[in-house]
Amino acid sequence: MPEISSKGRQMPASPIRKLVPFAEQAKKRGTHVIHLNIGQPDIKTPKIALDAVRNHTIEVLAYSMTEGSEEYREKIAKYYEKYHIQVTSQDIIVTTGGSEALAFVMGTIMDADDEIIIPEPFYANYNGFATAAGVNVVPIVSSLDDNFALPPIDQFEALIGPKTKAILICNPGNPTGYLYSKKEIQQLSELVKKHDLYLVADEVYREFTYDNTEHYSILEEPGLEKHAIVVDSVSKRYSMCGARIGCLVSKNKDVIQTALKFAQARLSPPTFAQIASEAALETPQSYFDAVIEEYVERRNTLVDALQKIEGVRVAIPKGAFYCVVELPVTDADDFAQWLLEKFEMDGKTVMVAPAAGFYATPGLGKNQIRIAYVLEKEQLITAVNLLAEALKHYRSL
Amino acid sequence: MPEISSKGRQMPASPIRKLVPFAEQAKKRGTHVIHLNIGQPDIKTPKIALDAVRNHTIEVLAYSMTEGSEEYREKIAKYYEKYHIQVTSQDIIVTTGGSEALAFVMGTIMDADDEIIIPEPFYANYNGFATAAGVNVVPIVSSLDDNFALPPIDQFEALIGPKTKAILICNPGNPTGYLYSKKEIQQLSELVKKHDLYLVADEVYREFTYDNTEHYSILEEPGLEKHAIVVDSVSKRYSMCGARIGCLVSKNKDVIQTALKFAQARLSPPTFAQIASEAALETPQSYFDAVIEEYVERRNTLVDALQKIEGVRVAIPKGAFYCVVELPVTDADDFAQWLLEKFEMDGKTVMVAPAAGFYATPGLGKNQIRIAYVLEKEQLITAVNLLAEALKHYRSL
Ligand SMILES: Cc1ncc(COP(=O)(O)O)c(C=O)c1O
Ligand SMILES: Cc1ncc(COP(=O)(O)O)c(C=O)c1O
Repeated sequence: MPEISSKGRQMPASPIRKLVPFAEQAKKRGTHVIHLNIGQPDIKTPKIALDAVRNHTIEVLAYSMTEGSEEYREKIAKYYEKYHIQVTSQDIIVTTGGSEALAFVMGTIMDADDEIIIPEPFYANYNGFATAAGVNVVPIVSSLDDNFALPPIDQFEALIGPKTKAILICNPGNPTGYLYSKKEIQQLSELVKKHDLYLVADEVYREFTYDNTEHYSILEEPGLEKHAIVVDSVSKRYSMCGARIGCLVSKNKDVIQTALKFAQARLSPPTFAQIASEAALETPQSYFDAVIEEYVERRNTLVDALQKIEGVRVAIPKGAFYCVVELPVTDADDFAQWLLEKFEMDGKTVMVAPAAGFYATPGLGKNQIRIAYVLEKEQLITAVNLLAEALKHYRSL
Repeated sequence: MPEISSKGRQMPASPIRKLVPFAEQAKKRGTHVIHLNIGQPDIKTPKIALDAVRNHTIEVLAYSMTEGSEEYREKIAKYYEKYHIQVTSQDIIVTTGGSEALAFVMGTIMDADDEIIIPEPFYANYNGFATAAGVNVVPIVSSLDDNFALPPIDQFEALIGPKTKAILICNPGNPTGYLYSKKEIQQLSELVKKHDLYLVADEVYREFTYDNTEHYSILEEPGLEKHAIVVDSVSKRYSMCGARIGCLVSKNKDVIQTALKFAQARLSPPTFAQIASEAALETPQSYFDAVIEEYVERRNTLVDALQKIEGVRVAIPKGAFYCVVELPVTDADDFAQWLLEKFEMDGKTVMVAPAAGFYATPGLGKNQIRIAYVLEKEQLITAVNLLAEALKHYRSL
C-alpha cells in the first residue's frame, strides 16, 4: 500500500480538533457546552444579502468570471474608498473566502522553502496554507504584557534572510484582538521597503475596531503600492461566513497577474455567494454601529468578569472579537480537555481554544487560551463563572 | 522591489487565455464569435436546485461542516449506489468544485517533487494544481488514431519510478471524450496494486456516456479500496458550474483524514451551493435522459459535419461533451488566433481551444483543437461551416 506522503501528514490539524470528540461526549452525557472556541458570529446576516439570493433569477448557474464579476469588483473598490483606500476593480481578485486569498498569496509570492515572517500568536490556518504551499513560517513572538503590540522592528530585521519573501500581519488580530497603530504600520512599511519584501495584511476584521480607534490599512500607506497585499473577506463583516467570499487586493500588477493564474485553475468563485456579497455592500452603517456596540459590550462584560478571577490575565482587545487569556494553569490543553471530560456545573461546561495552536514556536502559549466573544452577554457571564469555578477545582486536583 | 517568485511564474496560464483579447477585439469590431472553446453547458439547471436556494430560510449564514453537511454527504452516498458504488458519508469530503478536490488530492498523496502520471491530452488545469502543490506531471501520450484509448500498460510501467505516487485519469475524458472500458480500468488497477500507487479518477462527466456505453468507476473495482480516489462535481451533471460544489471520495481512511486537514484550513464549502446541490440530487432521470439525448444529437451533428471537411480527423467521443479535432494546419494556435483576428463570414467567426494546451509534452497537439459541443445544433452547424470556410482561406494564405 502506498504511504500517505509526509507532506500530507505534516499538514497541521486544527488546534481544537483534538477537543471535538470530548465536546461530543459531553453533549451525549447531557452537558450543555458553551462554545467560546469558535469565531462563528451569532449576529444576523444583513437581510438585504439573504434576500438577494432569495430573489435570484438564474436559469443556468454558470461559471462567473475567474476574478469575480466586474460589477462586484467595482463595488468593492467603492467600498474601500470609504476607508481611504484607492484601488480599482483591476486590483481585486474575488476569492472563495479570505482562506483562498491566503492560499493564493502563499503560492504567488513564494517558492517552495521560502520564508514568511508572522508575529505569533497568529490565526492557526496560516500554518496550513503555508504547509500546503511548501513554504516556511518564521514566527516572531508578541506578548500579552503589551496586548500583543508589534514586536520591535530590530527583532524582525534579525529574522530576515535570503529566503524571506514577506511579512504577514493580521490587523486587527485573530487571536490577539490587537489593532496595529498607524505608526506600527509605517515602521513595517519602512522595513519591507528596505529589504524588498512583501507586506501582507489580513484585514478581514477591518470594521471591528473599538474605543474610537481607527483601522489603518497597509493600502493607505503611500509608497507601499508594490509591496502591499491585502486579504479580505465578507465572512465576519456581514456575518456571512457560509457564503465563502473574500478577495485579494494589490496594486502590484505582477502580483495580481500571477494570482490570477491560481484563480484560473479553480475556474471561479461561487455565484450565489457573490450575489449575496454584492448586495451586502448596501448594508447601512446603522447595522455596523449596532454590531460594534454589541461587541464592545460583550468585550467589556467578558474582560471585566475575567479580570476578577485570581491568577487570570487578559489582553484587552481593541478589535476583532477574540481575546487571549492567560490562566493559572501549566497546560491549557489539558485544562480544556478536562473542562469537557470531567467538569460541569448546573449541567453546563465551556469549550475554549488552547492558545498553543496559535503559536509556531513549540512551548509558547501553553498557559493561554483564546476566547471568541460571539455570544450574548448573559452567556458570556455564565461561561466566565463556569471557568472561574472550574479553575478552582482543577487547581486543587 | 521583491521579485515575484519563480513558482508563481511557472504557474501555467489557461490555454485559451492568450486568445481572449483577440476575441474581445473581434466582438468590438462587431463580429459575432461562436464559442466552441468553453465547457460551460447551455443546458438549464434543474429547477428543483434553483428553487431550493430561492426558498432558503437562513438567518445567520454560518460556516457549514468542513467536510460538508452530514445530510448532504449521506445523500451523495445514496446517489453513488445507483452507480454500483458502495460508499458511506465517511468516505466523502464535500469540496468547492471538483477543482478543490483536485487540489486536495495533489497535496494529500504527494510531497513536493513527487510524480503523477497522466495520459495526455488532459484537462489543462491538472497542470495548475500540480504546480501549486509543487509536484510533477509525467505525461503518457494517447492517440487520436484510437480515439485516445488507454495507452499500453507497459508504457505506463516504464514511467514508474521512485517518485511516482499516482496515476490520474479523467473518465470520461476532457478533452478526449474517451470512455475507459471496464477492462482498461482493471488493467490500471492491477498496475497500481502492483506498484503501490494511488489511482485517481476524475469522474465529473460520469453521467455523460453515449451509444449505450456504461461508465465503470474505479470505486466499483473490487480490491482497489486503498488505492482509489475519485474527484467528482455537480458542475456539469446539473449544469450548475457556478455553484462550486464537488467532492473527493475514497475508502482509504488515511487519505480522507489527511485531505480533511486541507479542508479544515479553508474552513467550509459554500452553504448556498450545498443547498442547491443537495436539492439537485432529486433531479428526475427524465432530465438526464433528455440532456443525454441532446448531447448525442449535438455530437452526431458536429462529428458528421467535421468529417466532411477535407483533411480533418475527429476522435469520436463516447462521453463528456468535448472532442479533439485534427486540422490540416501546422499550428492550431496561430489558426485559432487568425480566426479571431482576420476571419469572418456573414459577420461571424468561431473561437476554438488549441489542443497544445492539453498536452504536457512540448510540440504535441500542435495541429489539434478541442471543441466543446455545449451549443445548440444550428449553432454547431454554423460553426463548422465557418471552420470549413476558414480552413480554405487559411491554407491558401
Ligand atoms: C484572521 C482570519 N483570516 C482569515 C479567515 C478566513 O475566513 P474566510 O475564509 O471565512 O474568509 C479567518 C476566519 O476565521 C480569520 O480569523
Ligand atoms: C475534467 C474536469 N475536471 C474537473 C473540472 C472542474 O470543475 P469544477 O471545479 O467546476 O467542478 C472540470 C471543469 O471543466 C473538468 O473538465
